[in-house]
Amino acid sequence: MKLIRFGEPGQEKPGVSINNVNYDASAFGEDFGEQFFASNGLKRFADWLSKNTNLPKLDAGVRIGAPFTRPSKIICVGLNYSDHAKETGAKLPEEPIIFFKATSALCGPNDKLIIPRNSTKTDWEVELGVVIGKAASYVSEHDAMEYVAGYCVHNDYSERAFQLERGGQWVKGKSCDTFAPMGPYLVTTDEIKDVHNLRLVLTVNGKVFQDGNTSNMVFKVPFLVSYISQFMTLLPGDVISTGTPAGVGLGFNPPIFIKPGDVMELAIEGLGTQKQVAWS
Amino acid sequence: MKLIRFGEPGQEKPGVSINNVNYDASAFGEDFGEQFFASNGLKRFADWLSKNTNLPKLDAGVRIGAPFTRPSKIICVGLNYSDHAKETGAKLPEEPIIFFKATSALCGPNDKLIIPRNSTKTDWEVELGVVIGKAASYVSEHDAMEYVAGYCVHNDYSERAFQLERGGQWVKGKSCDTFAPMGPYLVTTDEIKDVHNLRLVLTVNGKVFQDGNTSNMVFKVPFLVSYISQFMTLLPGDVISTGTPAGVGLGFNPPIFIKPGDVMELAIEGLGTQKQVAWS
Repeated sequence: MKLIRFGEPGQEKPGVSINNVNYDASAFGEDFGEQFFASNGLKRFADWLSKNTNLPKLDAGVRIGAPFTRPSKIICVGLNYSDHAKETGAKLPEEPIIFFKATSALCGPNDKLIIPRNSTKTDWEVELGVVIGKAASYVSEHDAMEYVAGYCVHNDYSERAFQLERGGQWVKGKSCDTFAPMGPYLVTTDEIKDVHNLRLVLTVNGKVFQDGNTSNMVFKVPFLVSYISQFMTLLPGDVISTGTPAGVGLGFNPPIFIKPGDVMELAIEGLGTQKQVAWS
Repeated sequence: MKLIRFGEPGQEKPGVSINNVNYDASAFGEDFGEQFFASNGLKRFADWLSKNTNLPKLDAGVRIGAPFTRPSKIICVGLNYSDHAKETGAKLPEEPIIFFKATSALCGPNDKLIIPRNSTKTDWEVELGVVIGKAASYVSEHDAMEYVAGYCVHNDYSERAFQLERGGQWVKGKSCDTFAPMGPYLVTTDEIKDVHNLRLVLTVNGKVFQDGNTSNMVFKVPFLVSYISQFMTLLPGDVISTGTPAGVGLGFNPPIFIKPGDVMELAIEGLGTQKQVAWS
């Protein structure tokens, strides 16, 4: 399944995308959030869909939101592609570097990017998001995939000066409002044949900057789920953003950062496309 | 007012503490969370209390939970007391160091501390928690206190090996389950005459380890609220944990860490006391 949510920010309703057509599934009566995932919602929604085959189509102009409600946490993995680690001048990590992004940064896949005040170094990062399906604490790598509900595209926007030049931890540069567009879909695991062989592409103003493949991830999805669950409980609906391949603005000489009016378009194979226009 | 919540984990109900007696305020019909704060809940609750003066007393044995529901974020400030910065060997920061703690770590003030698996360096940190009352984005230091609902005690438990020896960012050592006991009260700002002159004390097995005062905070509460709001929107119910004074286990030579059976008791003047027993 491809779950979507539509409507104005804060008032999104659940929907579903079938063969590239978006349908209103608000009659299901539940939003796609922690309680939904925790109560076998994906199975219940699939059953409901099989009995409700005549859903209303969405108008073409309707806004698409993030495909799930605000999670308890967005956990990001730093330097998880060897080519990206190289371009930033960093060594390949011996174990995953993890950090949090404020969940208040979550927005729809095609919402405006708001360049934060006093920003000079806003940058892009196409990433595979892994959505947790049930509470995970001390799970083994072997069992980890049972805890995954699905996947989504995420643009892990990063203000490099806030992240790297303002005292210590990365969170300041990762958490600005609109810095976490997710979607358009939450694609359930059954639709993705091999999550470690998906092409990721990001363009700015039509020019390709990132063109990677999840096969180059240093730490793979089951390892990441297991690893993070050793340090905290992953809750249903939580998102792990698994790192970005080479081609971020910071990696160029001189670096390239986002200006108002720039258009970021990104896609991951099987997970749909996003498009953000930068505003200040 | 001193807001409390009581009952089993995940099923807490709202209450209130008046002259050291805890009352059941579940008839108010709303829990103390983001929607409550965002909709002028403190004022509405005060009005309701003035008309409902005969609330049921709570039984002495009832569990006290965190005094608010899981916030969107717990933002912690690192090295914000000069004496603590010194004991860790760190320089005083030029601007606040901030990091996130997983909100899944939140628990009641007297719940067990669960020492995480593979932990060798679990440590304590008594801290003043500042609870946000309304959405704050780019607020000035001058206006910042208008965005504060109240204060609470927080024990910012930290696993020092996870925090400092496992690859880069601090989040791994800050986010384990039960690492964020908060409460017993959310004390509204009107009850605290000077938030920058409160004694903080923490004992382990009856021995005083931390005995500080919020007057020694490097960055004060209005500055912190304003500062953090430059990087992200603070949502109603979010918590800023403002750093810890000297006396953490890591600061001793050799360091002292928590063992199963250890008893941590902590208090902040006007904000009540906590007591946790360590389990593994």
